[in-house]
Amino acid sequence: MIPATSAAELRAAARRGEWRVTTAGHCPAYQQANVVILPKESAAEFAAFCTRNPTPCPIIEIMPPGDPEPVRSAPGADIRTDLSGYRIYRAGELVEQRGDIRDLWRNDLVTFLLGCSFTFEHALIDAGVSVRNVECGTSVPMYVSSLTCLPAGRFHGPTVVSMRPIPEAQIQLVRELSAHYPHAHGAPIHVGDPYEIGIADLARPDYGEPVQIHPGEVPVFWACGVTSQAVAVKARVELMMTHEPGQMFLTDLPRQGNTRT
Amino acid sequence: MIPATSAAELRAAARRGEWRVTTAGHCPAYQQANVVILPKESAAEFAAFCTRNPTPCPIIEIMPPGDPEPVRSAPGADIRTDLSGYRIYRAGELVEQRGDIRDLWRNDLVTFLLGCSFTFEHALIDAGVSVRNVECGTSVPMYVSSLTCLPAGRFHGPTVVSMRPIPEAQIQLVRELSAHYPHAHGAPIHVGDPYEIGIADLARPDYGEPVQIHPGEVPVFWACGVTSQAVAVKARVELMMTHEPGQMFLTDLPRQGNTRT
Repeated sequence: MIPATSAAELRAAARRGEWRVTTAGHCPAYQQANVVILPKESAAEFAAFCTRNPTPCPIIEIMPPGDPEPVRSAPGADIRTDLSGYRIYRAGELVEQRGDIRDLWRNDLVTFLLGCSFTFEHALIDAGVSVRNVECGTSVPMYVSSLTCLPAGRFHGPTVVSMRPIPEAQIQLVRELSAHYPHAHGAPIHVGDPYEIGIADLARPDYGEPVQIHPGEVPVFWACGVTSQAVAVKARVELMMTHEPGQMFLTDLPRQGNTRT
Repeated sequence: MIPATSAAELRAAARRGEWRVTTAGHCPAYQQANVVILPKESAAEFAAFCTRNPTPCPIIEIMPPGDPEPVRSAPGADIRTDLSGYRIYRAGELVEQRGDIRDLWRNDLVTFLLGCSFTFEHALIDAGVSVRNVECGTSVPMYVSSLTCLPAGRFHGPTVVSMRPIPEAQIQLVRELSAHYPHAHGAPIHVGDPYEIGIADLARPDYGEPVQIHPGEVPVFWACGVTSQAVAVKARVELMMTHEPGQMFLTDLPRQGNTRT
């Protein structure tokens, strides 16, 4: 693993093909982002979906058609090269995984950067809360819940949630800390019994890797940015490109603030 | 003037043509919104502009093409009838002002609801700060500043600011109170000398009506949602429809929270 202290350094390592692991636990000073790239044809509808479901899909920046530079959140970066891995979907099917998307770029592609819970994990760790997926270096477990999103045109579906086991005594602290990060999903949307939100088996996540729940710990669930990818897959959009799960885009935005202007 | 306690009542009065004045100072429990309606062709670019300039243009909801119902922020409302006045611009020229836009509606029109400073004015009043434009029942004075927005495609231009005179002793209080409303422009972006942000004459606002500044008061400037209309006019978008200045859309969203989900 390459030590990377700034977001720009991590992006440069990804561009050189030298960063191949999860970004969870790295670059604690900066906001991390989910990436969804769609043709302009479906972009207004997808933007509407995100604004109607701001807890799973908090918008950090939308880039105009054909523009690969996130001028607000990472000036000088290039969204076609600065992720460590990309997934390519055509008509809802995953067709390819690759290290850059320069040759797939088009003038009508609109990039969405959406907040990620990795941003607030650092605040939990700073406050003495251990975050199992960071300890284990694994991708956080994610589940399709029974909580329904507000629809927008062809985009509709359930909320995907991420789960972290938290000792009962720290739950109030964790609620309060994460509530300060509305641009990164904010407070948990469910605490406790997974059945209540339609999750049958915590050992079998729909995305990411399972983690152990120790005695005295309670599963805590946050809305997850993968929600946006799941609805776009379901809508069978002609082309969608995303980050490789767990390998997020590192912005230059400070962890706690959503505004710069 | 019609007493309206709920946002739904005010919208109904507007729909019946019985509400014809500013919404400033009304419905203190609810968020007010700027309305910008554009063809889908320019919507992704405009969404990008808003996300790159979240202080003047905080997105409350984007509605998918052709959808007149703000299902997140005012379920059951109709954006074609529930404002008390509309302005119609073609290729950047104001061509008409009217009471509803049902016959101009198209399947490709995308509605943007953006936060408004009227939302936090109630918090100032509750804390004992007098808000001159509310006292006078006039439209808040707005000025084109020299602060430049981050561009997004064809959309670019200066930040428009609103101004309220505040007694020197209350400035810190006003900063703190408005900072709690990031979905309504947040904290002031400038306090004091208007020349520093390129404003030559406070008595001659670019939009709204001037207000008197009393001895001991300082002009305080907030980013303003009119910024978004100004850049869309300048870009000469084929068709743009907006609210009549000062006559905002009343949402059902609680004043302080931006999230519902």
